[in-house]
Amino acid sequence: MSTLTPSVPSTHAATNLEALIAHLQETALLSSSNNLLDWDQETLMPSGGLEWRARQQALLARMVHERTASLERGDLIAAVEADKQAMSDPASAALVREARRDHSKATKLPASLVEEMAKTSSLAKHEWAQARAASDFKRFAPWLEKLVALLRVQADCYGFARDGERWDALADLYEPGCTARAVASVFTPLRPRLQGLVAEIKAATKRPADGFNDFFVEVTRQEQLSKFVAESIGFDFERGRLDRSTHPFCGGTHCNDVRLTTRYNERCVNDALGSTMHESGHGIYEQGLNARAIGTPLGEAVSLGIHESQSRMWENQVGRSRAFWSWLTPRMLGIIGPDASRFSADDLYSAANVVEPGFIRVDADEATYNLHVMVRFEIERAVIGGSLEVAGIPALWNRLYKEMLGVDVPDDRRGCLQDIHWSMGAMGYFPTYTLGNLYASQFFETACAQMPGLVDGFARGEFSGLKRWLNENIHAHGRRYTPAELVQRVTGAPLSAEPLMRHLEGKLRPLYGI
Amino acid sequence: MSTLTPSVPSTHAATNLEALIAHLQETALLSSSNNLLDWDQETLMPSGGLEWRARQQALLARMVHERTASLERGDLIAAVEADKQAMSDPASAALVREARRDHSKATKLPASLVEEMAKTSSLAKHEWAQARAASDFKRFAPWLEKLVALLRVQADCYGFARDGERWDALADLYEPGCTARAVASVFTPLRPRLQGLVAEIKAATKRPADGFNDFFVEVTRQEQLSKFVAESIGFDFERGRLDRSTHPFCGGTHCNDVRLTTRYNERCVNDALGSTMHESGHGIYEQGLNARAIGTPLGEAVSLGIHESQSRMWENQVGRSRAFWSWLTPRMLGIIGPDASRFSADDLYSAANVVEPGFIRVDADEATYNLHVMVRFEIERAVIGGSLEVAGIPALWNRLYKEMLGVDVPDDRRGCLQDIHWSMGAMGYFPTYTLGNLYASQFFETACAQMPGLVDGFARGEFSGLKRWLNENIHAHGRRYTPAELVQRVTGAPLSAEPLMRHLEGKLRPLYGI
Repeated sequence: MSTLTPSVPSTHAATNLEALIAHLQETALLSSSNNLLDWDQETLMPSGGLEWRARQQALLARMVHERTASLERGDLIAAVEADKQAMSDPASAALVREARRDHSKATKLPASLVEEMAKTSSLAKHEWAQARAASDFKRFAPWLEKLVALLRVQADCYGFARDGERWDALADLYEPGCTARAVASVFTPLRPRLQGLVAEIKAATKRPADGFNDFFVEVTRQEQLSKFVAESIGFDFERGRLDRSTHPFCGGTHCNDVRLTTRYNERCVNDALGSTMHESGHGIYEQGLNARAIGTPLGEAVSLGIHESQSRMWENQVGRSRAFWSWLTPRMLGIIGPDASRFSADDLYSAANVVEPGFIRVDADEATYNLHVMVRFEIERAVIGGSLEVAGIPALWNRLYKEMLGVDVPDDRRGCLQDIHWSMGAMGYFPTYTLGNLYASQFFETACAQMPGLVDGFARGEFSGLKRWLNENIHAHGRRYTPAELVQRVTGAPLSAEPLMRHLEGKLRPLYGI
Repeated sequence: MSTLTPSVPSTHAATNLEALIAHLQETALLSSSNNLLDWDQETLMPSGGLEWRARQQALLARMVHERTASLERGDLIAAVEADKQAMSDPASAALVREARRDHSKATKLPASLVEEMAKTSSLAKHEWAQARAASDFKRFAPWLEKLVALLRVQADCYGFARDGERWDALADLYEPGCTARAVASVFTPLRPRLQGLVAEIKAATKRPADGFNDFFVEVTRQEQLSKFVAESIGFDFERGRLDRSTHPFCGGTHCNDVRLTTRYNERCVNDALGSTMHESGHGIYEQGLNARAIGTPLGEAVSLGIHESQSRMWENQVGRSRAFWSWLTPRMLGIIGPDASRFSADDLYSAANVVEPGFIRVDADEATYNLHVMVRFEIERAVIGGSLEVAGIPALWNRLYKEMLGVDVPDDRRGCLQDIHWSMGAMGYFPTYTLGNLYASQFFETACAQMPGLVDGFARGEFSGLKRWLNENIHAHGRRYTPAELVQRVTGAPLSAEPLMRHLEGKLRPLYGI
């Protein structure tokens, strides 16, 4: 019964391109307002606000979707596409290509399917939480079946290449151009090499010192340490914040207002430190976007995988390096107190690099993490493809964990019910985590080759060279290049498993005396 | 070039009234989202976010205004007005009356005037800040002249009674039904009585102990104290928060998500305590609104004056009472430390009630505060009425301060440039502060009469009786009654200066041995 009836805004667009940009930016004002509602809910909102907040967010999300799918948006895009002058500029052409992509995605799903999916996943998320608490997959199975059925319809609406598969249409939402075949072509050779490395580590007699991993540090000091590290590596607190939440994330409203969160465990400093480095990596990406392009595709991150490469690089390539720890150790003692002085920089470096196969993805170390992702990829590809029934998930899950990680999954709670993603209707998402690790290693190798002495500089607290390199080579482009184009352009080669393996083997073999 | 094109939402309204309510609530979802953007900007937003935030807020404000003024809204209101069944219910009739009032106000101003006013006041606010820093009224005068000219046009658009004056049309925005004549009829007898009381106090030989007023207490302890007091008097932290900001205020998104702020001065505990009590009073009003009516006029505060009565009552009638201090003193020592134990409850009660005429309104005590407001009322009434030129403001201001408060205003910075209100185009606003004090006293007298022993209970920390009484008699009604009707209904009498004078004289004469 309602229509929102705003007048023509005072922006006077001289060209079709300017008119399209104004339409995109006005939509971004709404979606970024919704981002603040979301951030506030996760960090500060009193519990009483929940119900009204859900209604605020649903309304704003609906408005953003409707504007993106609108005929008006479509007409504006078509007008620029027909404008040879505008399209002769490669940046403008990329902007229009990505605007077309978003518009097309938004128009492909019938409203009834969007609504059905929103309703089902909202209920399924609730049922998943209950089923996980009871460690009872059977309870969740009927909901997952409904979701899978809807996801298959959704994939057919989006469409996929003739020689591709349904899963591709879902993955493309998160990683433009991603296909199961392309993922498999990287994962298949990577898997035995990771398994081999993990087996070598298991068999090794030398173990890295891990005494720091249950060292007590009170939360206020950890918070001070986290802010110090985030600022030191280049997160700008004039254009961002760091707060607390149950699950760490990076949100915000604009490249000049980026909100990180982390969590603190008194008995695990590396938990807060790792997640702060990780979220700072996401935040440095967001802060590095082109401020003048915000609200358009050229001022947006290109994909989840590339975003994850930025968080992983700062978390792992930087934050788990020996040079980083030789810089941080003396400075950390000043913040967390002299009790920690019994740990040397080498002790702390070792503690950050302990490998221990387990059954929980979010607790996994760098070497085993990607094996967790492969289990999920294999399962969701089979489920969406139709070769696996939902009922068969737990058995396959447990078998793959045994095969790949050598662990016996004790129950569904710590097995196939551990992650929230599927319950939210997100399939095709998991591989972006490993793509992120692969991109990170490949980008970092290139950065090291182009900037000799880069890693040595970390020991002197010199992080701005890497940040600037990422700003220029990755962040500033927004969605101008596809992920595959970006990797080729930055590193001169297509995505490969080699840099990740060199990174892991180069670091872990000496630590384990292999 | 843009239109927002949302679909029909899934709410299926069975009646015209339900359809109107759904339209009102959807608008409230947007305006309350804007409230969160505003709260965040005042409390947490990194400085980099300023420009984008201004654009977000302008867009949401425009959408809210356009929905309120829309033909669709008008048609929905008209449909309910024509529905005898719906209008036979007094609550529904009040809802429609107030929806009509808002729609009518929104449609009366031409868009060009709204835009001109927004642009001028935005620039004028900036010029005012510069002029104040330079203590140079002449610099601000041309901007104030423009604003006054626009305000006069605005008043003519809104309209006012034949026997009224232009100022009434402006005041009605803040205090429905308020007229200059009605304000003057209360202010005129009040002024000599307040001046008389202040003169008696000036001449008194006894002075209340004020040693606590520069007692050092560190900010974290003051914050703990503020939260303790806010919670004790009835502010619900499950449905609200208390944070810090430069200027204390009460904001939020819903009665179940109310955001208070206060500020801390290490050398003045009563500054934080007073402003916390004040903002808690506003917050308790907001939390006391009818949750089911949120988003409609029946779930909104009735006027600025009534809102201010709630903050003033908790700040003054409760927070500056002897009973309150005899409850708080021992509890406060546990929070701010034993150094304060040299102050008795009587010392603290005295310190909270020192009277000292000055030239700054926001620093004024209870006895002199209303004289500051009267100066502003007299000036803005004359300026809007046309009997005073803007250029004549400083001279009249200084003369009135000498006459009413016996102080020599040293310069414009501490004189007629001290308040931000006029620079924002807000004339007709100041009297709501004194109306708030008057309402507070009259309501509180009635509460005391209806609940014998009410004040004695404060000494035992019993504040819930007063809160419940306010919930039932004032908060739950929203805008069902006009301010004048509400006062009559709750206290059985029209607004009068007597209760305020009885409150002030009854407290201050003994303290000053008069």
